[in-house]
Amino acid sequence: MKIIIVGATGTIGKVVSSELGKRHEIIKAASKSGDVKVDITSSSSIKDLFKHVGKFDALISATGTAAFGPFYSLTEDDFYKGIKSKMMGQINLVMIGKDFINDNGSFTLTSGILWKDPIKNGAGLSFVNGALNSFGISAAVELQKGIRINVVSPGLVEDSAATLGAAFPGQIPVSMHRVAQGYVRSVEGFSTGQVIEIL
Amino acid sequence: MKIIIVGATGTIGKVVSSELGKRHEIIKAASKSGDVKVDITSSSSIKDLFKHVGKFDALISATGTAAFGPFYSLTEDDFYKGIKSKMMGQINLVMIGKDFINDNGSFTLTSGILWKDPIKNGAGLSFVNGALNSFGISAAVELQKGIRINVVSPGLVEDSAATLGAAFPGQIPVSMHRVAQGYVRSVEGFSTGQVIEIL
Repeated sequence: MKIIIVGATGTIGKVVSSELGKRHEIIKAASKSGDVKVDITSSSSIKDLFKHVGKFDALISATGTAAFGPFYSLTEDDFYKGIKSKMMGQINLVMIGKDFINDNGSFTLTSGILWKDPIKNGAGLSFVNGALNSFGISAAVELQKGIRINVVSPGLVEDSAATLGAAFPGQIPVSMHRVAQGYVRSVEGFSTGQVIEIL
Repeated sequence: MKIIIVGATGTIGKVVSSELGKRHEIIKAASKSGDVKVDITSSSSIKDLFKHVGKFDALISATGTAAFGPFYSLTEDDFYKGIKSKMMGQINLVMIGKDFINDNGSFTLTSGILWKDPIKNGAGLSFVNGALNSFGISAAVELQKGIRINVVSPGLVEDSAATLGAAFPGQIPVSMHRVAQGYVRSVEGFSTGQVIEIL
């Protein structure tokens, strides 16, 4: 398969690229490096990505930012940071990418555990993750020509534990192997409309 | 209690106003009529609402629109219709309202069943509902001074069955009594961070 991985240089993207690269052609897309540069907050940049890459079989997105900070300090603009990047950035990868993906292809987006297990300072991210899960669930019933979509929702991942662990008291970090297999399950498996929780 | 009901003239808002009006002071807010007019897509209009009403004990929001239409026709602007109205409109009611609500007060927002049970043409709404549920879950852990928040997620409601029923094949409409009691449970009960599903 020809697989585009957006966020391929990130913590999750790196291990997913490495695992799927064993048996597929990987196009690494990222904001600053990789094979193709893309700014997911810009729909024209996303269009350029697909025009450059052409037809493909799977797209994995493991990217996007959102505001992290105390609830009482969050501004409307802070909420829009997550909307424009992690939420609509990933949704636009699907909405634009659906015109370029091959029949029976798949989209795999990334949300995260905060959609249901809140942490302090996490409200700017939780709602983004909830939106992404429900987008995947709903898009799956309308995508045509065998095209599938799933959303991977990881807990705190091992390679982020040193930097982010303090924000997730009591969470056992999930191994990078387990995380990567969530994406493998979406891309090489046959399910659609699933929230694949990696806990 | 002094309770602001935003969307008080709508299908759900009417029955909730009627039920809670039996034993509380109700301030009806709506886009076109009611005691106070408010445009939830405008944060300055929301600020004006709270300045006008002053301190209150509970806010219920049963309002907000989103795009409804075929997945392959949805534009980025369509997604932003739901973001600006039902999603950020309701989130802003909380973020601005938290500076006006009395201690031990409560916020109750409205999402809907499409967050997990998709229908055809519903992707523009599903992601909004998912975002609202997760916002409520996360806001609850940071709200201070006993302030609570819950999100009511109704299925197809009886009073909408004639107009919307065809879009929800096989769904048994929920009675307006059952819907109203979901809001009563949030306002008069003690739970917080709950998605109150009315099915």
